Amino acid sequence: MEHLVSVSDLTVDEVKELLQAAEQLRFGDQHIRPTTQTFVANLFFEASTRTKCSFEVAERKLGLDVIPFEVSASSVQKGETLYDTIETLAAVGVNAVVIRHPQDRYYEELLNKVSIPLINAGDGCGQHPTQCLLDLLTIQQEFGGFEGLKVTIVGDLRHSRVARSNAEMLTKLGATVYFSGPKEWRDDSLPGEYVELDEAVKYSDVVMLLRIQLERHDRGQHAVDHYHERYGLTVKRERLMKKSSIIMHPAPVNRGVEIADELVECERSRIFKQMQNGVYVRMAVLARALQLHKGGMNNVAFNQEWLMAK
Amino acid sequence: MEHLVSVSDLTVDEVKELLQAAEQLRFGDQHIRPTTQTFVANLFFEASTRTKCSFEVAERKLGLDVIPFEVSASSVQKGETLYDTIETLAAVGVNAVVIRHPQDRYYEELLNKVSIPLINAGDGCGQHPTQCLLDLLTIQQEFGGFEGLKVTIVGDLRHSRVARSNAEMLTKLGATVYFSGPKEWRDDSLPGEYVELDEAVKYSDVVMLLRIQLERHDRGQHAVDHYHERYGLTVKRERLMKKSSIIMHPAPVNRGVEIADELVECERSRIFKQMQNGVYVRMAVLARALQLHKGGMNNVAFNQEWLMAK
Amino acid sequence: MEHLVSVSDLTVDEVKELLQAAEQLRFGDQHIRPTTQTFVANLFFEASTRTKCSFEVAERKLGLDVIPFEVSASSVQKGETLYDTIETLAAVGVNAVVIRHPQDRYYEELLNKVSIPLINAGDGCGQHPTQCLLDLLTIQQEFGGFEGLKVTIVGDLRHSRVARSNAEMLTKLGATVYFSGPKEWRDDSLPGEYVELDEAVKYSDVVMLLRIQLERHDRGQHAVDHYHERYGLTVKRERLMKKSSIIMHPAPVNRGVEIADELVECERSRIFKQMQNGVYVRMAVLARALQLHKGGMNNVAFNQEWLMAK
Repeated sequence: MEHLVSVSDLTVDEVKELLQAAEQLRFGDQHIRPTTQTFVANLFFEASTRTKCSFEVAERKLGLDVIPFEVSASSVQKGETLYDTIETLAAVGVNAVVIRHPQDRYYEELLNKVSIPLINAGDGCGQHPTQCLLDLLTIQQEFGGFEGLKVTIVGDLRHSRVARSNAEMLTKLGATVYFSGPKEWRDDSLPGEYVELDEAVKYSDVVMLLRIQLERHDRGQHAVDHYHERYGLTVKRERLMKKSSIIMHPAPVNRGVEIADELVECERSRIFKQMQNGVYVRMAVLARALQLHKGGMNNVAFNQEWLMAK
Repeated sequence: MEHLVSVSDLTVDEVKELLQAAEQLRFGDQHIRPTTQTFVANLFFEASTRTKCSFEVAERKLGLDVIPFEVSASSVQKGETLYDTIETLAAVGVNAVVIRHPQDRYYEELLNKVSIPLINAGDGCGQHPTQCLLDLLTIQQEFGGFEGLKVTIVGDLRHSRVARSNAEMLTKLGATVYFSGPKEWRDDSLPGEYVELDEAVKYSDVVMLLRIQLERHDRGQHAVDHYHERYGLTVKRERLMKKSSIIMHPAPVNRGVEIADELVECERSRIFKQMQNGVYVRMAVLARALQLHKGGMNNVAFNQEWLMAK
Repeated sequence: MEHLVSVSDLTVDEVKELLQAAEQLRFGDQHIRPTTQTFVANLFFEASTRTKCSFEVAERKLGLDVIPFEVSASSVQKGETLYDTIETLAAVGVNAVVIRHPQDRYYEELLNKVSIPLINAGDGCGQHPTQCLLDLLTIQQEFGGFEGLKVTIVGDLRHSRVARSNAEMLTKLGATVYFSGPKEWRDDSLPGEYVELDEAVKYSDVVMLLRIQLERHDRGQHAVDHYHERYGLTVKRERLMKKSSIIMHPAPVNRGVEIADELVECERSRIFKQMQNGVYVRMAVLARALQLHKGGMNNVAFNQEWLMAK
C-alpha cells in the first residue's frame, strides 16, 4: 500500500522520482487519468485553505471524483474512531483518503490496518510531506539541483511540520542547512548549525521562513512586535541577500511578522510559486498512491467478496 | 412523484424490484445515466458519514451533479421553512433532494406540495428506507431469499429507525422476526416475540444489532458497561451462533458495547458489506425517483412557464 | 479584468448585453464551455441558499470545476486576509472567485490588486449585482422592456442591497420608480418618490417587496405583527393591483410579513421565476468574467513565470 505519511519514509531516489513526475505534470508531458471512476475524500480536522484547495485542484486535474467530507457533520461527532471512518469510506467506494489532523502521528495505528492508501496532509507538529516536496521542487527549479546550496530555515523550529523533514532531505541531497530564530523555539536534535540571521542572509541561497502559528501559542509569550525586528526578514535584511537568492515561506504569512509586508510578493519571493508547485506535487503523490500510471488500483474494501468459510 | 420516505409505502413487489435493480447495478449489468445534466442536493440536518457519503458516491456513479448544501451556511439559519428551501432548490434547477432530519415525519407536510422527488435519508426515530433496503439486500445475497429465516433484532428498539420497517418487511417476505434487549427500550407494537439473547443466538440466521444512540440518551440511564454483558453480542454468545449465521449492524458501531470489538470484522460480520450494498440500493432508489431508466424526468419547477391568465 | 462588483459600474448597453446573453443561455441558443479545465470558488462569508446554490448550478452548467471553500475550515480562521486568500486560490489554479461578505465594500481594496476576476454576490448593505440583473431580466421577460413602466419598491430600503441599484438602473432604462415602507427605513438619497402602498398597488406594473432582514434588526424595534397590515402586500392590497401587474421579492420570504402567505405562489407572483432567472444571469456574468466566449482566460497567477531579473 503506497501510503505517504512522512518524507523520511522515502528514499532519495523516490523523492527524485516524485519531483520529476511533478515537473512532467507541470509541463503537461504526462496526462494521467484513471481508467475507471475513482473516488477520494479529504478529511481536514484542522483549518486549511491552501493545502485543502490545492489537493482539491490536484484531484480534479487527475479526473478523480472528490467526495465531500465535513468533519463537523460526520459521525466523528458521534465518537466514531478514525479507523472506522476510513474503513467506512473505503466500504462505500472511496479509493484513497487525504488527512490533516491536529494529533501528532495520528496515522501510526492506521497504517497496517486500513484498506486504502492514506496521504498525510499534516499532523500536529509532525509531518507534512507534500509541503516538503513542494519546497524541494521550488528549490530544484531555481537552482537546477541541491548540491552545495546553503539553506537557512528561520523561526518556530520546534512546532514546525516542515523544518525537520526539509532539513533532513536537503542534507541528503547535498545542501547545507542552517537554522535561526528565538532560543525558546530551537530544537537541538535538528541536523544543522544555529546562526545569526544578519549573517545568514548574506550567504544563503534560500531563506526559508516558518510561520508563527499564532493559534498554537500563548500570544503573550513572544511579543509579535519584537519578532519582526529580531528574527524576521526585514527590508534591511533582504537588501543583504545575494542577487540570486530566494525567499520561501509555507504560508499563510503573518505579514509584518516573519517577513516585511512589501517583501511577500517581491522579485525574489517564491511564496506563490510554492503554492503552484503544490498542485503538481500533490498530483504526483496521488498518482503514486492510486497507481494511476497503471490505470488505478483495485479497492479491496469495496470489491471484497463475502463468503463464509465452508 | 416517486418520493421515498418509508419502506411501508412500498409493496412487496416494489421492494423486490428495487433489490433486483440494486443487484444489477452491483454487477454492472445496468449502466444508467441521465440524458441531460441532472442535479441533486443532499440536505443533512444531522451528522452522518456513511449515509451521506454513500449517497454522494451513488449520485456520482449515476453521473448526477451534486450541489453542495451546508445547513449551517444556508438560509435555514434565517428561518426559511423546509418547504421554501426545497422549492428554492427546485427553482434553481435541482431535480431531487435527499434529506436527513432530526424531526419525526418532517416530510408529512411536504409530500403533496413539493415539485421535485424527496428521498428520506432518516427522520428522527422514524424511517430510514434505504437502510432497510440495504439490510434486505444483504440478507438476500447471503441466503438467496427470506422464506423461513429467523432474524433477531437486538437493542434500542424504541428509538431505532430500522427495527420496525425491517421487521414488517421481513415478515411480509416470509421470515420470522424476534426482538431482544433492555425492557425499557421495548416497543410492544412491534410485530414479533421478545426472546432472551442467549437462546436467540443459537437459532437465528441473522443477529441484527442496533446502535445505542449515545447522543440521544441520558448516558447515566443505562450504564454502557453492563449493556455489553447483558444485551451485547459478546465473544461467548457469538460462539453459540450457527455456522451459517451472520451478524449485522447499521453502524457507526460502539465497539465493546453492542458488539465485541474483535467481532466487528469477523468472518460472519456483514457490517462492511452492508455499507457496500448501501451504494447500490441508493443508486436504485435515485434512479427510480429521477426516472433515469427513461432518461430522466422533467423538472417542472425549473422549466415552468410563467403566464398571466388572460 | 472583468470584475463585477456593482451594476452601477456597467453601462446601459453592458446591462442589455448581459440580459441578452442570459436569455440566449435560457433558450439554449448558446452552449458556452471553456476549452480547458477551469476552476472557480464560491466564498460565502454569510448564510445563503439561493444565491450560493444558484451560482453552483450556473457554474456546472458552464462546465466549470467548483472548488469547495468552507469559511469555517479555511485559513481565514488563522487571520489570513481576503487578499491573501484570493491570491492563494489563484496560485493553486482557481480562475475566478464569487464572494459574499458582511462588510460593505469589502472589495474596494482588492479590485486593482487581485489577479483573477471577482464577482460580488452581496456585500453588507451594499451591492448585489446578480440580484439586480435577475430582477431586470424578470421584468423584461414580462413586459418586453422598461420604458414607461411603474415600479414600486417596498420595505427596508435603507438596508437593502438591491433597492438603490435596481432604482438607478430602472430609471436609466426608462421606468419610473416609487418607494414605500416605514419612515425609519427611508433613504432620501434614493432616486424616486415616496408613496402610500394602498395607492401604489393600483398603478404599479411591478410591486417589488424587500425582505425584512430579521437577522440584522433588533426584533423588538419594528413589531413584525403590524408590519404586514401597514406595509406588507396583504390579500386585500393584491386585489387592487392591475390585471397585468406582477409581484417580486428577492427571497427568502418572511411569509405573512412582507407578503401574505397565500400570495407567495399566486398567479402574479414571479418570486420563483426570479430564482430561475438567477441561474441564467449568473451564467452570463461568469461567462463574461472568464471570457468563455473566447474559450476562457489565462490565469496569470497560476501560469506566472518566476525569473530573477538579470
